[in-house]
Amino acid sequence: MHDAHADTGPADGAATADVIRQALDGHPAQRGDLEDLYKDLHRNPELSFAEVRTSGIVAERLRDLGYEVTTGVGRTGVVGVLANGEGPRVFLRADFDALPVAERTGLPYASTATAADQDGHQVPVMHACGHDMHVTCLLGALRLLADARASWSGTVVALFQPAEEIGKGAQAMVDDRLFARFGTPDVVLGQHVGPFPAGALGAHPGPALAATDALRVQLFGKGGHGSRPETAIDPVLMAAHTVVRLQSVVSREIAGGDTAVVTVGSMRAGTKDNIIPDDAELKLNIRTYTDEVRGTVLAAVERIVKAEAAASGAPREPEISPIGRFPVLVNDPDATGRTVGALTAHFGPEAVFDPGPATGSEDCGTFATASGAPLCFWFFGGTDREQFAAALEAGTVARDIPSNHSPLFAPVVQPTLDVGVAAMTVAALAWLAPAG
Amino acid sequence: MHDAHADTGPADGAATADVIRQALDGHPAQRGDLEDLYKDLHRNPELSFAEVRTSGIVAERLRDLGYEVTTGVGRTGVVGVLANGEGPRVFLRADFDALPVAERTGLPYASTATAADQDGHQVPVMHACGHDMHVTCLLGALRLLADARASWSGTVVALFQPAEEIGKGAQAMVDDRLFARFGTPDVVLGQHVGPFPAGALGAHPGPALAATDALRVQLFGKGGHGSRPETAIDPVLMAAHTVVRLQSVVSREIAGGDTAVVTVGSMRAGTKDNIIPDDAELKLNIRTYTDEVRGTVLAAVERIVKAEAAASGAPREPEISPIGRFPVLVNDPDATGRTVGALTAHFGPEAVFDPGPATGSEDCGTFATASGAPLCFWFFGGTDREQFAAALEAGTVARDIPSNHSPLFAPVVQPTLDVGVAAMTVAALAWLAPAG
Amino acid sequence: MHDAHADTGPADGAATADVIRQALDGHPAQRGDLEDLYKDLHRNPELSFAEVRTSGIVAERLRDLGYEVTTGVGRTGVVGVLANGEGPRVFLRADFDALPVAERTGLPYASTATAADQDGHQVPVMHACGHDMHVTCLLGALRLLADARASWSGTVVALFQPAEEIGKGAQAMVDDRLFARFGTPDVVLGQHVGPFPAGALGAHPGPALAATDALRVQLFGKGGHGSRPETAIDPVLMAAHTVVRLQSVVSREIAGGDTAVVTVGSMRAGTKDNIIPDDAELKLNIRTYTDEVRGTVLAAVERIVKAEAAASGAPREPEISPIGRFPVLVNDPDATGRTVGALTAHFGPEAVFDPGPATGSEDCGTFATASGAPLCFWFFGGTDREQFAAALEAGTVARDIPSNHSPLFAPVVQPTLDVGVAAMTVAALAWLAPAG
Amino acid sequence: MHDAHADTGPADGAATADVIRQALDGHPAQRGDLEDLYKDLHRNPELSFAEVRTSGIVAERLRDLGYEVTTGVGRTGVVGVLANGEGPRVFLRADFDALPVAERTGLPYASTATAADQDGHQVPVMHACGHDMHVTCLLGALRLLADARASWSGTVVALFQPAEEIGKGAQAMVDDRLFARFGTPDVVLGQHVGPFPAGALGAHPGPALAATDALRVQLFGKGGHGSRPETAIDPVLMAAHTVVRLQSVVSREIAGGDTAVVTVGSMRAGTKDNIIPDDAELKLNIRTYTDEVRGTVLAAVERIVKAEAAASGAPREPEISPIGRFPVLVNDPDATGRTVGALTAHFGPEAVFDPGPATGSEDCGTFATASGAPLCFWFFGGTDREQFAAALEAGTVARDIPSNHSPLFAPVVQPTLDVGVAAMTVAALAWLAPAG
Repeated sequence: MHDAHADTGPADGAATADVIRQALDGHPAQRGDLEDLYKDLHRNPELSFAEVRTSGIVAERLRDLGYEVTTGVGRTGVVGVLANGEGPRVFLRADFDALPVAERTGLPYASTATAADQDGHQVPVMHACGHDMHVTCLLGALRLLADARASWSGTVVALFQPAEEIGKGAQAMVDDRLFARFGTPDVVLGQHVGPFPAGALGAHPGPALAATDALRVQLFGKGGHGSRPETAIDPVLMAAHTVVRLQSVVSREIAGGDTAVVTVGSMRAGTKDNIIPDDAELKLNIRTYTDEVRGTVLAAVERIVKAEAAASGAPREPEISPIGRFPVLVNDPDATGRTVGALTAHFGPEAVFDPGPATGSEDCGTFATASGAPLCFWFFGGTDREQFAAALEAGTVARDIPSNHSPLFAPVVQPTLDVGVAAMTVAALAWLAPAG
Repeated sequence: MHDAHADTGPADGAATADVIRQALDGHPAQRGDLEDLYKDLHRNPELSFAEVRTSGIVAERLRDLGYEVTTGVGRTGVVGVLANGEGPRVFLRADFDALPVAERTGLPYASTATAADQDGHQVPVMHACGHDMHVTCLLGALRLLADARASWSGTVVALFQPAEEIGKGAQAMVDDRLFARFGTPDVVLGQHVGPFPAGALGAHPGPALAATDALRVQLFGKGGHGSRPETAIDPVLMAAHTVVRLQSVVSREIAGGDTAVVTVGSMRAGTKDNIIPDDAELKLNIRTYTDEVRGTVLAAVERIVKAEAAASGAPREPEISPIGRFPVLVNDPDATGRTVGALTAHFGPEAVFDPGPATGSEDCGTFATASGAPLCFWFFGGTDREQFAAALEAGTVARDIPSNHSPLFAPVVQPTLDVGVAAMTVAALAWLAPAG
Repeated sequence: MHDAHADTGPADGAATADVIRQALDGHPAQRGDLEDLYKDLHRNPELSFAEVRTSGIVAERLRDLGYEVTTGVGRTGVVGVLANGEGPRVFLRADFDALPVAERTGLPYASTATAADQDGHQVPVMHACGHDMHVTCLLGALRLLADARASWSGTVVALFQPAEEIGKGAQAMVDDRLFARFGTPDVVLGQHVGPFPAGALGAHPGPALAATDALRVQLFGKGGHGSRPETAIDPVLMAAHTVVRLQSVVSREIAGGDTAVVTVGSMRAGTKDNIIPDDAELKLNIRTYTDEVRGTVLAAVERIVKAEAAASGAPREPEISPIGRFPVLVNDPDATGRTVGALTAHFGPEAVFDPGPATGSEDCGTFATASGAPLCFWFFGGTDREQFAAALEAGTVARDIPSNHSPLFAPVVQPTLDVGVAAMTVAALAWLAPAG
Repeated sequence: MHDAHADTGPADGAATADVIRQALDGHPAQRGDLEDLYKDLHRNPELSFAEVRTSGIVAERLRDLGYEVTTGVGRTGVVGVLANGEGPRVFLRADFDALPVAERTGLPYASTATAADQDGHQVPVMHACGHDMHVTCLLGALRLLADARASWSGTVVALFQPAEEIGKGAQAMVDDRLFARFGTPDVVLGQHVGPFPAGALGAHPGPALAATDALRVQLFGKGGHGSRPETAIDPVLMAAHTVVRLQSVVSREIAGGDTAVVTVGSMRAGTKDNIIPDDAELKLNIRTYTDEVRGTVLAAVERIVKAEAAASGAPREPEISPIGRFPVLVNDPDATGRTVGALTAHFGPEAVFDPGPATGSEDCGTFATASGAPLCFWFFGGTDREQFAAALEAGTVARDIPSNHSPLFAPVVQPTLDVGVAAMTVAALAWLAPAG
């Protein structure tokens, strides 16, 4: 365990180790059901704000567990409440949307789903970011908490959030009067599965996940026949030059000691080999940790996009419009200390690490910043331990371990699921009051 | 008129000026109907090998005119035959497919059609290359020829060809035993509307339209989360570098005096801003006039595509596969002399010009090379004369006059249609024998 | 021989075949001396406007031959006049400057010379364009003409021109009152050795060599330490992007049937690995045949250079300044017919070809356009015939036969020299009047 | 002051505050002389291993101060020894070479010097990295230490090191048997002026300056005439594509949380606009902190350089050769704590900060790693305080404050010089023993 957490024991007034162990005793009985649920969710992914089937399953299960259920919170979100006497109001959050990725895991329960995206195109859909695991683990923890309600006191508010991938779901739930309807949290807890060894748990106090700006760039050329480029202004070449030039933002304009990532995740222009199209579209994803670096990157992107269009002789300036935005996710140091302390006490110090700040983004922090509550958001590993160890030995972790959003991303079901359920349960009990 | 044609009068044994004038006398009566037909076809474009509605209209009209009609020749092609005694067998050809372009002409009869393309994506469809005009003009000429059958002798074989845009329709008709079923032509005649002043007619003897190679390039990277490029191999950037690098084929590897065009008409990678995709796809269109230049270009494209993938550290070599191929279209000098002579005699020397070789491609030549018959393929102008003259004055023809395949390409209906009907009629009569 | 020349016999009033044969009889006696002279000139090349040694040798030899000699015409140029009675005034021109190229021919008489260039840098110097051969051949022809003066009448004006490589020498001689001092020519004749088989002679009537624009581009960044690019604006990257982007001028903005060449021959920025320099310099060479294409290219270059600087966030706009300019060289069709006719009569039709227009440039045309006289400028081959035939067979002429300006360019001494002397003699006699 | 230093008071056995104050009392008397010396050195910069004049001045002054002087240590290095009884052997180091930069500060004492570089080219020379300030400050401190010798005990060894800029000087001195001849140090102390407010002092414990790899890349094309690129393989374009592609190493292959800098400081190809040269040369400077990142960057550079040459069809693989290498500079935490403690005690906590790791490199660490002694290397500010504050306010420090190696880099003479003298004196006394 990271030294910074070493002295953070179980907080006063939180559940004891005994309570935790008792609560977890019920897990083996639900393990098979949860594994089936996970595979079912994995096989049936749904895009952001289209999580209709998923939210239906979640709502039904919550009702079965005795939670008071509200659906349609922030369009397709679901809230489940278990009011269990005086005590802290603990928000537990799982996101549940999937991604337009064509799964290539080869798993028996791999997705073959397709759906219409926002532009009406049919696209493949895959749980390539593990949100199916988040849902499964949270449902597992909610059952254990419900079953153990005699041993704790307070209110559990479970948030099943839509549209995390486009950075809009948390805000949508907040905007849907979340706190007015379900109370203000004393703490917000969330977890994310990632390319770490299954069984490992990691949390970083302070800024832990980067800010994201997602931008759409439309470039305007002038279409024509592919054999007569001199009559056209080629937006394909304009887009290519822009993508190439954008590499210099990180390589030349950001100090070595600062962090920024600029990715063009989508580039689309034209349909046919012999038609020079009228325009091209890029989708950019930008990660930063500070306002200064963010400002530098955004200004450089705009400067480059406009100048490359000018270099092509574009008839119109490009249009840059936001697709979505994530703020920096900041883990409250005290809340993280308390939560990590409980996790360490339960799982042992060798299981808990500090991953440092990561360039990923998450809108889970929105529930904290919008309510003023402290946040603790942690990672739990999903990679086969032996595979990870071998890649570590070979120095090929970055290249060989499929990361979130890869068509090959697939957490091993176990021990990932067991640890995810337990971690969420332990963390919740670290904040709920002991019974009477 | 170009000097090379000056001494080419009406050939012996062909229709006299009187016969031609008489035949054309019937045109005013059909003008309104043809204009309506043109607008109807324009409003209802169909993609290559999907010309179901169009071929139905053509077949019905051919039957009404008394032609013997065969449909389904080369999938969706239509052949109409008018056997009218001894004499030459003259093939008249019009192509009738449209393009996946979103029309922006603003015309009252503009297309709003969409259709599924070969990959199943819904795409807009537009007659952006004027094939609707070709069909209309040929149908008009066929009526005049049928009405004038007393004054000529021979056989008219009208070819309504599908899928010219993908370079496959002419070969499909030939492969469907065209010559065995409909005889070997004595001459093949075809015409194309283009960005010249309406009323102008142009033909170039010898190599007149370029060879085309259409290639699909698949580039393989390694997908991942947009925030963690170090775990991925970015195919978006790989594609961008490849497109940029391909510019140097023409600029550096082809002599100034030689001609080559390399266009990347389509570049597609990824769907979402925060996912680095697994692969990218380019569609290339290459124009050349000689085997040597073609070989140099194709070798350079392959070298660059592979090396750029290597520069990115691609896990697999790119795949380059042919989408289609057009040979050089070669106008037979004698046949062109004879045809141009007749056009000049009818329209006057000021109406006929030699456009020189053009970088466009056409598969009409396939009917000639596959049968051993001579070919004459000419252009007829579709641009408003005053607009053209103004652009010429301003030196902005290349930029201001919408060219074929542009979303703004729209021939003025008149005098384009009248001249197209008359040109095809005159040319046919220049080859048919005078009536006994 | 090209058909266009087939019917062009010896012109009336020009030297007969007998006179020509007699004049050339004297050549074997001077052959060894000329070969030595050629090797001496090759070993001692001098940069543009620094041809001090060369002009001294030329002047001395001219005096020995009985020509009236004027030195310092257009800085380092030399004019030799042989007034020989009534008759045409025939200007014969050879250029005599060399290039900043490090010779790699490995010849026993290869250059190892260096000299200070215009910026004061020591650079290697090489006769990489064969001007040493031009000087030698013209001196050989001048001796033969002087020896044969009894058989012709008129005035021979020999121009030994400096600074052809920078496009300034011909203009400098004209500006030095060339025509006022030495009369107006009736014809201007010049020749150039090139990568054709030795013995071959080629001339193209009309526009035969391209216009050249040579430009210097200065790009301004902001220097800094190599480890802190975020404090600098990197002109190295700015220059690289500019060079890459310039490839699209030819590939995208010039029609396939038009001709343009844009070469960046020099790119220089920085001195040390760990210092980001303040600026970068490019030198561009642009070839075109028409004002329209030239205008398009120059505008595109300016647009791209400025936009790429803007994309880099340059603190100042780039500066684009002309280094030099060559107009299109236009061979007068009649004068070319007459000259080629004489060459064909002497060397046989198999020796004379039409090379078509070439993208090279020459300022020899300046003597014609400035005086209103007709011009004939032809090429003579300098490549070993067997080597050329083998490369032709292998299809590797462009890659294997060293071209002018290559560090490997080295005409075979014979028969190149013999043919060059004879061609200039024959051409001159084709224009001089027969003796009384 | 950074918390990590807060509890590090003056070490036992080191000079007291009184001794320090007394020693510094002598400084005002030498201030004017040192300012003159600084300006003289600034006006007369010398390149690496050519510091002849500078070493002469240093040696003479050291002798005047009573130091035992040895010259020619590591070619042009100078060592001065003051043995003053029992006690620690303290190495104080200043580097004294300048850079090939054309000064643009406009200062009255600006350099106009030029010199031949390693390749024999005349280049401008400037003290653009402040080594003149290092020399001046160390000489000032050495005088104060000599004058105060009654109050301390031990041996001061002053190292005036050549050729820091090319990463070879420290190793050259070590290789010249430095430790055998002058003893093994108990500590190595060095300082560097930088773009911080004058008066500020900064030291970072642990890895403080990056590893550097300086590489020369030679790219091989095939020369030819600028008008005939099809006969050549253009190394200018090859170099440009390589420079552009190298940007993706940092932007795509290094994690956001890791640090790497890849700068191409020099790019040179060709001399003339109309000659395509045979080859091109790049000089790269690479900064990293860990072996893993270093390995990733070096492998990516090699992969890209080779693939871009292949994409150009290069006739030979590029050659990549090391120019120089700096290891990571690691400040010993204890030694840094002790030194910073003394500086803090003297200058006050508000003057001392932790700059964090910087991407600059230094070979001063070689004296420590080669001898096993601890190192403390700190920065002292050279920027006008008001100018710095204004830039900080405006958020334009990175762009507006000239950094080391900029042609505008010029420390303000005061208080930079006073603080530099005092800091070196204080630091030395923190390690020397108090007098018996």
